[in-house]
Amino acid sequence: MESKPLVSIIMGSDSDLEIMNEAAKALEQFDVPYEIDICSAHRSPARTSEFSRKAAARGIRVIAAETTLPVIAVPIAATPLGGLDALLAMVQMPAGIPVATVAIGKPGATNAGILAAQILATSDAELAKKLVAYKEKLARGVEEKSKKLKESRAK
Amino acid sequence: MESKPLVSIIMGSDSDLEIMNEAAKALEQFDVPYEIDICSAHRSPARTSEFSRKAAARGIRVIAAETTLPVIAVPIAATPLGGLDALLAMVQMPAGIPVATVAIGKPGATNAGILAAQILATSDAELAKKLVAYKEKLARGVEEKSKKLKESRAK
Amino acid sequence: MESKPLVSIIMGSDSDLEIMNEAAKALEQFDVPYEIDICSAHRSPARTSEFSRKAAARGIRVIAAETTLPVIAVPIAATPLGGLDALLAMVQMPAGIPVATVAIGKPGATNAGILAAQILATSDAELAKKLVAYKEKLARGVEEKSKKLKESRAK
Amino acid sequence: MESKPLVSIIMGSDSDLEIMNEAAKALEQFDVPYEIDICSAHRSPARTSEFSRKAAARGIRVIAAETTLPVIAVPIAATPLGGLDALLAMVQMPAGIPVATVAIGKPGATNAGILAAQILATSDAELAKKLVAYKEKLARGVEEKSKKLKESRAK
Amino acid sequence: MESKPLVSIIMGSDSDLEIMNEAAKALEQFDVPYEIDICSAHRSPARTSEFSRKAAARGIRVIAAETTLPVIAVPIAATPLGGLDALLAMVQMPAGIPVATVAIGKPGATNAGILAAQILATSDAELAKKLVAYKEKLARGVEEKSKKLKESRAK
Amino acid sequence: MESKPLVSIIMGSDSDLEIMNEAAKALEQFDVPYEIDICSAHRSPARTSEFSRKAAARGIRVIAAETTLPVIAVPIAATPLGGLDALLAMVQMPAGIPVATVAIGKPGATNAGILAAQILATSDAELAKKLVAYKEKLARGVEEKSKKLKESRAK
Amino acid sequence: MESKPLVSIIMGSDSDLEIMNEAAKALEQFDVPYEIDICSAHRSPARTSEFSRKAAARGIRVIAAETTLPVIAVPIAATPLGGLDALLAMVQMPAGIPVATVAIGKPGATNAGILAAQILATSDAELAKKLVAYKEKLARGVEEKSKKLKESRAK
Amino acid sequence: MESKPLVSIIMGSDSDLEIMNEAAKALEQFDVPYEIDICSAHRSPARTSEFSRKAAARGIRVIAAETTLPVIAVPIAATPLGGLDALLAMVQMPAGIPVATVAIGKPGATNAGILAAQILATSDAELAKKLVAYKEKLARGVEEKSKKLKESRAK
Repeated sequence: MESKPLVSIIMGSDSDLEIMNEAAKALEQFDVPYEIDICSAHRSPARTSEFSRKAAARGIRVIAAETTLPVIAVPIAATPLGGLDALLAMVQMPAGIPVATVAIGKPGATNAGILAAQILATSDAELAKKLVAYKEKLARGVEEKSKKLKESRAK
Repeated sequence: MESKPLVSIIMGSDSDLEIMNEAAKALEQFDVPYEIDICSAHRSPARTSEFSRKAAARGIRVIAAETTLPVIAVPIAATPLGGLDALLAMVQMPAGIPVATVAIGKPGATNAGILAAQILATSDAELAKKLVAYKEKLARGVEEKSKKLKESRAK
Repeated sequence: MESKPLVSIIMGSDSDLEIMNEAAKALEQFDVPYEIDICSAHRSPARTSEFSRKAAARGIRVIAAETTLPVIAVPIAATPLGGLDALLAMVQMPAGIPVATVAIGKPGATNAGILAAQILATSDAELAKKLVAYKEKLARGVEEKSKKLKESRAK
Repeated sequence: MESKPLVSIIMGSDSDLEIMNEAAKALEQFDVPYEIDICSAHRSPARTSEFSRKAAARGIRVIAAETTLPVIAVPIAATPLGGLDALLAMVQMPAGIPVATVAIGKPGATNAGILAAQILATSDAELAKKLVAYKEKLARGVEEKSKKLKESRAK
Repeated sequence: MESKPLVSIIMGSDSDLEIMNEAAKALEQFDVPYEIDICSAHRSPARTSEFSRKAAARGIRVIAAETTLPVIAVPIAATPLGGLDALLAMVQMPAGIPVATVAIGKPGATNAGILAAQILATSDAELAKKLVAYKEKLARGVEEKSKKLKESRAK
Repeated sequence: MESKPLVSIIMGSDSDLEIMNEAAKALEQFDVPYEIDICSAHRSPARTSEFSRKAAARGIRVIAAETTLPVIAVPIAATPLGGLDALLAMVQMPAGIPVATVAIGKPGATNAGILAAQILATSDAELAKKLVAYKEKLARGVEEKSKKLKESRAK
Repeated sequence: MESKPLVSIIMGSDSDLEIMNEAAKALEQFDVPYEIDICSAHRSPARTSEFSRKAAARGIRVIAAETTLPVIAVPIAATPLGGLDALLAMVQMPAGIPVATVAIGKPGATNAGILAAQILATSDAELAKKLVAYKEKLARGVEEKSKKLKESRAK
Repeated sequence: MESKPLVSIIMGSDSDLEIMNEAAKALEQFDVPYEIDICSAHRSPARTSEFSRKAAARGIRVIAAETTLPVIAVPIAATPLGGLDALLAMVQMPAGIPVATVAIGKPGATNAGILAAQILATSDAELAKKLVAYKEKLARGVEEKSKKLKESRAK
């Protein structure tokens, strides 16, 4: 990833890497430069605070916590409550502090990547085209699976 | 609102107007031109479908359903389940279909407006400055309330 | 309601009448003859059992409990749990015992009526037309509200 | 399945096939002709929209989304929330848009098939008889299991 | 209430009196002698402990906590969680410590009284007859309400 | 089990046998004669109804559904919702229809057996003694485990 | 409050004052010097961060966020979810970051105050005596209410 | 552990040992002397009661139930409800009875140990230093993992 990252994917712990990699993969699909890092508001507050203050200056346009940059949150099912606790903790923010919460776990991480790309695409016509192509691919995928299903049942 | 809207605030029903007005107010605070309309994927699918297809061409950059534009969802507590049903229905989308879900009700509607502004600010330095000012105002508001509280207790 | 009822709306208690009347109103909108009665599987099991056995013979085609006729259930928020208890009790039936559960409270009661009409319309072309007209009216209603909203904001 | 399908079983993704096959099996038990297809309101909206508009004309009488035909929904536990999210998203529809929601997962898929058969049986005396026979078989099954249990404990 | 109490209705706080009175009323309906008292396992552990040890010797046969006498628990919705917290705290006891949990609030309190009467009726033929009469009255009540409803609609 | 059963353990399906056997084991511990049977209110309503009407005459004093005999319910986690659905369906009965609900699954089944024994012990001094002994054994069990734990840590 | 505060009661917003005053009242009951302030980790992160760093040096021994001082959290029911969202967000912290969560709303605020006093009492014999007296008062209060209830029923 | 225990870790059952050992490990990290024991309020109420009365005299300063000593509760996911039942039962205590509830399972047990250490550190400067060092180690751990992640991705 030689170009300067526009999106910063932040995890609270390296145990979340497998899930958050889905966000990275989604961004790679759209050639959006990104960085991925570990930064815990609870365990390393000073580092997190510094990260937030400097992110915009570094060129980051979509990220994690305590900043005016758009923030996308992926709840992770790390407890016996299946992620409902993380989901409610993230989405139920007070007025003035928007957090764009997506689905729990891997589908959410994928969608966090796509959403970041969509945000950047509001001012990047090239990226907007890639997203239109992606949506078309999704639709075609459904058609192909429908065709395969019919063929397998026709046998 | 003479300038062309960049954000489209869509409600499923006019009974949601009081809540969604908070999103409008948040956008006005940042001078972001917007439109507000009623469009129900369930009750008027054809209209919704047409709206989605044409929004980007009309210059809309942040909106509601079935489109590659960034989508922000505000769950509304319209049932005895307090909005948990709406929240889960919105946030738990499959991979490929990101929906940026915010908090239930008015705080969520306010945050939807601010988030829309943050998204546009990724390519609008003027707007980005307004958002920084807004965050500073939030922080100052806390300080002022802290001062008032201390004064009222000192009496 | 002179013609023989095709739909039987059953309540467990007369305190549910205000809510279940919405189902009656929905059926009247489509001129579907119905009856409305109180019958409690818990409080009057014998009566409920007799009702179930004789309903089909009486010409009833869509009703409540313990029968091979299609069953539509409306959860009612009669407890501090907001109807989640009633919803789960109704919808989570074992395989072999389908219960068509709709939303909690009045919107659910309305939908129970419409669903009953849709079921009858699978073999009644006249009724099917009325349902198409109803869907169109719903869509038009959205359009009109959208227009009114725009007018009120233009002032 | 040579005869024209009366019931259309629609999945959002081929990963749901194993579960939705239970609906197919239930319909086969009653000799109800059906089709099974993949169609995603989120991933292939245009295809879904077209499907909905043409289903009635093709002779389909019970199906999935955005239509005046009766709609039966099977919540699928695809997330760490065990299907509660899907259940609430499906059942809590606004007034005017009934969705007949059944139980989560395989028991729900079985019941979706039986419910579809029950709906068709409101105007098909032959099918109605098969459903009565099915209910009797269910009751007999309980008796037989009761007998076996007693025998196994008598040893 | 001159005769020796057989049932002891215990509340944790006098704020629960209005609800627990329903249990008292249910017992009066069956002429079951009872006592009603305040005793908090949390606030007055010693008193509660003494109460439990001496209840059986005093002739109490159905009561509250820490005893081999049958225990019936009524969850009370004293918090914003609508009683779900109290319900789960009471019903989810470990093996060896059965607690007969009934519904949240007044319907539960009524049922606690009836359940206590049913327990005593396992060895009291007179009381058993009163309970049969009560069930018949419940069924008749449903019939009467059904009749009234039909009359009111016939007008 | 030669003596006439006093307790009837009823399951809706033989798949619940492993869990409900815990209730049987608990009753055997107190030498309470019982029967165990399969009877589904949903799948075999007539049989269930007949069972209920005749149970008291057969000498049964504690059982399952639709009767004035005390009813103990064991929620079983047969769905992806972990038994919360079964728990709420059982415990949230309307006033007049008490159901003594115990914990989900095996601990609940054990407690259902003990609770049945406690109910019978309200008029059986011999059984009451066994229950006191059981409670003492539970307390001793805790002491022994405490001792073992200390010994294992002392090494 | 002339003496230096040992406990710092922090609110995120002045709308929580009525609830958090209960914590203040509980501390006053034990003559524990405290301060009460507004400080939002979301709205005023810098101020919150500074507060945390300096609290220990100021003599504060029990407080709010991002510090090695004991932290007690009171969930507040500020949303339609009744505080379940706040409760889960506070209590479900990762290992290494303990947060002592108490009940939702006023009872929780009272308990936060008492808990703070109990923590200080681990090294303050005088305060420990006051807490023992408080527990005795609680127990006596139950006894008095029990007496009053009996008198009111005896009339 | 030769020195007199300051913290008492109490389990209701030896099946909780694996989880509660995390609390012990956390205390060992700070050289806080502790004891670990089994004591069930439900199964051995007399023993529990005696334990509570004598703990303070034995020098215990942080423990479990029915005492004026600070109480920390670790909800354990022993049922199909994932610990939500235990969490609500513990945290939702009435005013006057504070229970410091931490997260479900192992992370909660770890935090219970750290919280106990933090409470003791309010009057133990040496221990307070160890806790500051622990927080620094947590922050450094995040930094190291961040570095490793970057190195592994650079390859």
